[in-house]
Amino acid sequence: MVKVGDEVSNKQVIFRDYVIGSPKESDMYLTTGTIKLKVPEGSNAVLVKNLYLSCDPTMQFDMRKAMGPSRNPYYSPGSPIFGYGVAKVLDSGHPELKAGDLVWGITGWEEYSLITKTTDTLIKIQHTDVPLSYYTGILGMPGMTAYAGFYEVGTPKKGEYVFVSAASGAVGQLIGQFAKLEGCYVVGSAGSKEKHVGGKMLDAVLLNMRHHGRIAVCGMISQYNLDEPEGIKNLLHIGFKWIQMKGYTHRNYYHLYPKFLDLVLPYIREKKMVYVEDIVEGLESGPAALVGLFSGRNFGKQVVVVARE
Amino acid sequence: MVKVGDEVSNKQVIFRDYVIGSPKESDMYLTTGTIKLKVPEGSNAVLVKNLYLSCDPTMQFDMRKAMGPSRNPYYSPGSPIFGYGVAKVLDSGHPELKAGDLVWGITGWEEYSLITKTTDTLIKIQHTDVPLSYYTGILGMPGMTAYAGFYEVGTPKKGEYVFVSAASGAVGQLIGQFAKLEGCYVVGSAGSKEKHVGGKMLDAVLLNMRHHGRIAVCGMISQYNLDEPEGIKNLLHIGFKWIQMKGYTHRNYYHLYPKFLDLVLPYIREKKMVYVEDIVEGLESGPAALVGLFSGRNFGKQVVVVARE
Repeated sequence: MVKVGDEVSNKQVIFRDYVIGSPKESDMYLTTGTIKLKVPEGSNAVLVKNLYLSCDPTMQFDMRKAMGPSRNPYYSPGSPIFGYGVAKVLDSGHPELKAGDLVWGITGWEEYSLITKTTDTLIKIQHTDVPLSYYTGILGMPGMTAYAGFYEVGTPKKGEYVFVSAASGAVGQLIGQFAKLEGCYVVGSAGSKEKHVGGKMLDAVLLNMRHHGRIAVCGMISQYNLDEPEGIKNLLHIGFKWIQMKGYTHRNYYHLYPKFLDLVLPYIREKKMVYVEDIVEGLESGPAALVGLFSGRNFGKQVVVVARE
Repeated sequence: MVKVGDEVSNKQVIFRDYVIGSPKESDMYLTTGTIKLKVPEGSNAVLVKNLYLSCDPTMQFDMRKAMGPSRNPYYSPGSPIFGYGVAKVLDSGHPELKAGDLVWGITGWEEYSLITKTTDTLIKIQHTDVPLSYYTGILGMPGMTAYAGFYEVGTPKKGEYVFVSAASGAVGQLIGQFAKLEGCYVVGSAGSKEKHVGGKMLDAVLLNMRHHGRIAVCGMISQYNLDEPEGIKNLLHIGFKWIQMKGYTHRNYYHLYPKFLDLVLPYIREKKMVYVEDIVEGLESGPAALVGLFSGRNFGKQVVVVARE
């Protein structure tokens, strides 16, 4: 059992160098360093033990210097990669977090992390009667992405028709369930890279959209690693059928997080919503799990377990 | 001078047969029939003398049986084509219209028309201190298209950047002026078919859009007559930059028509807005003027004068 102030070994997934094209497992490597389990004097940082790490499609943008959205800064060659995760606070200089608290947010791919930008990036977990790994998925960023996309961008009405692409993924599986619970008729596609909306599927969707239909775009994973994106030919239908196509990010909707929890926590407890996770054990399995996202290897939300408390 | 009840000759532009591909002048022909200048007993129709006829891009859809939006029904082979126009009421069975009233709305390409579906299609002109032809343009359907697209779909804020495609057309020239009057920075493109948004220009626009940008789509004229539309490759930016792309139609915004007039009439009277018209004289010139739209021959709103009162 480690104690605050101990100097301990710290296994890490290190970023090798900037990537061109599709990320490969060899773009990361494992190493073991040491870390002192104590926040520097006078700092408002927190020192956490990482429990669950999230594999998210956007992490590939942090591996490249080119196009696309990115948490700022990009990954640094020679340093651990980072992303969403669930962690336990071991030591804290932050007034609103204390040792023993559970948090979710941006953390490193390593056993222990010293997190310095706590205010932007960490949310304290208040409800622990549900699986903690859910805060990388249904109760975390993918959950907020699904909620904002379906309710805020999609503005659904009972009886409407909902099409979900990548319907078995971290976000898609939630959209389908929200839509059913709201009394919509749901069609989903999943199972192969070709079926993700972004390329040919988007052309088929545009052709079949109803008048006044809404398309919420949180990403186009099938297109990220092509040398040239596929050309979309049916955009004319946006004008013909008064379709709205809107890109959005979960980042602009966190003022709704309490409302979101009020909706989703009862659904989880009453088993009205289920959440499929694809869980691998150990930091060692992380790089393969992350890279697997881009070939559609995962079924459900891809999670890496570093430690179970 | 003709009187109500007279039987008079009636020059007409007749639709030959359904069109495949781009409409040609020879898809229409001129003929002269006769018409009795009287509304049938007990009907709520109106009998009008046509003054100005509007050439609009969507009229090509009424010439085809295939894709796209259309006023219902399509043109009938052997009957006059129809579209927006300005006319003077000669006889009326309609409670809200009387002989001498000026109206704008859907009318036939002929000297005199008996209009039976008056409630949907005719709006009484209240302000005649401005050129009557403006009710085919700045004060008619293109004006409402520009107003709805700019203010309702685009939701502009002072200081924002506005790009207008087809900036010299019936709608585009108004968007540019609205944008300047609202204190926006405006860039427009015009002058060749290649520059219309819809194809390569849309790809360039997507690449250069700002975060949270809005694209209002009322049509994609450059794509209507291609065998296959051009593929759009930069839709990824919708997700990256949280862009909204929204198709809309003027038809859904007529509850705002009085508000629109309150805004635009003073601008016209004070010469804060100008409107460029490309006017041809006589029904005989109509088919060439209409077909010229699709090769970008017109500069400004294309109008056909049938009679000046």
